[in-house]
Amino acid sequence: MVPINSRNGPTVSHWGENKLLQEIRLWLGDASPPSPEGIGDDAAILKNSALPSAVTNDSLVYGKHFAEEAPPESVGAKLLNRCISDLAAMGAEPHHALLACLLPPDTSVEWLQSFYGGLRKTARACDTRIVGGDVTSTHRDLAFSMTLTGYLEANRPLTRKSGRPGDTLWVTGDLGGSSLGKHLHFEPRLGEGVWMAHHGGVTSAIDISDGLGIDLYRLAPAHGVICLDTAKIPISPTSHEMARSSGHSPLWHAFNDGEDYELLFTVQAACAKDAFARNWHREFDTPVTCIGRLEESEKGEGNRIRLSGPGHAEDLLGGYEHFKST
Amino acid sequence: MVPINSRNGPTVSHWGENKLLQEIRLWLGDASPPSPEGIGDDAAILKNSALPSAVTNDSLVYGKHFAEEAPPESVGAKLLNRCISDLAAMGAEPHHALLACLLPPDTSVEWLQSFYGGLRKTARACDTRIVGGDVTSTHRDLAFSMTLTGYLEANRPLTRKSGRPGDTLWVTGDLGGSSLGKHLHFEPRLGEGVWMAHHGGVTSAIDISDGLGIDLYRLAPAHGVICLDTAKIPISPTSHEMARSSGHSPLWHAFNDGEDYELLFTVQAACAKDAFARNWHREFDTPVTCIGRLEESEKGEGNRIRLSGPGHAEDLLGGYEHFKST
Repeated sequence: MVPINSRNGPTVSHWGENKLLQEIRLWLGDASPPSPEGIGDDAAILKNSALPSAVTNDSLVYGKHFAEEAPPESVGAKLLNRCISDLAAMGAEPHHALLACLLPPDTSVEWLQSFYGGLRKTARACDTRIVGGDVTSTHRDLAFSMTLTGYLEANRPLTRKSGRPGDTLWVTGDLGGSSLGKHLHFEPRLGEGVWMAHHGGVTSAIDISDGLGIDLYRLAPAHGVICLDTAKIPISPTSHEMARSSGHSPLWHAFNDGEDYELLFTVQAACAKDAFARNWHREFDTPVTCIGRLEESEKGEGNRIRLSGPGHAEDLLGGYEHFKST
Repeated sequence: MVPINSRNGPTVSHWGENKLLQEIRLWLGDASPPSPEGIGDDAAILKNSALPSAVTNDSLVYGKHFAEEAPPESVGAKLLNRCISDLAAMGAEPHHALLACLLPPDTSVEWLQSFYGGLRKTARACDTRIVGGDVTSTHRDLAFSMTLTGYLEANRPLTRKSGRPGDTLWVTGDLGGSSLGKHLHFEPRLGEGVWMAHHGGVTSAIDISDGLGIDLYRLAPAHGVICLDTAKIPISPTSHEMARSSGHSPLWHAFNDGEDYELLFTVQAACAKDAFARNWHREFDTPVTCIGRLEESEKGEGNRIRLSGPGHAEDLLGGYEHFKST
């Protein structure tokens, strides 16, 4: 099934906005509460919790973040799961979502229905309500933009850059080769993130979306250096698979591919590594690996990442940048 | 200044995502609090109020909602003001905004800076913080999607469809001809909406975005008829101006143009019209006009809008539908 389809089957321009909005409400079913708590009024009305909220925003563009052959259900699931991964990296549980649909006139309504099916299933699985949205017509691009709110049950967020010298550096799962399938079919590390926010020993966290080689810089505190042993990086089987034809090493793929949706985080030096890993595995089957530590930066040291082990920093660090056409 | 500009001045593809995000934070200045309350972490952290929240979402697409000649400051202001108008129609005060930018590679950064300037100025004027966002590259379309949250100070929302037979029907300001300028330069009826939510006599409300001829249906309760005297409609001077060359009547423009961003609302029969208008004008200079009332629908009556006065229903009711190419 393809998203843009002017020849076969009805499109959004055949239906018009009113019919489309009516159908979207049916497609969402009980994942969308009735108005005014959900879609159908000028705004959605939410009861507030005494807990602080976390709120994030993410977009998917056809031909950039998903291709013609991507199953629409997976695209719907991916959009929500990307936002959930952001909340997980703050230690927050998802609650309410709003979805803006930017649709060219020849968007297939059959494709859109399956997209909403995937979104609905994912929303129900994590107890998230789709409370609002908007459909807008574009000239050519098909895009979706989601805003997701959640609550910080632990009453403190897992921020970036808040690690301290001596902290150990950890990563969940394994890295690289996401484009072979994981980028569409991943499970955000939500339970792990919420647990980490409750665990006083975890000092900072980020989810790996643009690749370890970029997201390391975003986690590094202003006056600290991340010292990382590349021999310890958990490299995914798909990194090895891609390396067979890409001309890059599996390690390069682990640093550069991105869309891993794993959590990269720091733990206080006072928490012994073995004890932390034991506690973790009492809760989760998810692999967790200590890959380095934070140190004081030395006088005049510019780079905030110091690598030891196989590979070269200039090859491994940098990652993907949007817009740049290099 | 034009938004898409591959020949003169830097574009987002020259800058790349990292530089663009850094500059956006500078452009927003104190309209965006530091992380983790604002931009810069996986999600923004918000303290909650005990009051219920209202949340809405709206998008603008270049070539659909704003043209090449629109000043970029006005486009930034328009996006936020459209969302504020939605909140005003619920009786909520704006609080936190997130902005998704969907940008083709040749988007002019100079244009974008001015867009953010207009957004910042509008946000500061209404005490709204830009707490998050996202920049994503598209193939061709330039679009912005905003999510805005607010608090219901009155602790009750102004919903649609909640009017009762006997209620009077009112509208703020005047209607039609918005495309001659008001669509870019309007002030949402925020103070009025919040006041209405506190006024126990106001039973339902909507903001007029698609045109009176469409939004009347959205306000009409399921088992009621809106009876409207077209002679009472406050027709804007620009409706008269457009009618001189459009082949339509000024009344037609008042019903069909849309983008009025006025509030359409109902008031309990127990509130005498004169007394309501006197109370209103103690608070606001904004014009307010009683244009009709709600009645019980008669047995078998299908249409939920009944017009008296000049003009024909089939000509006046219907309004604009997105996507439809008629």
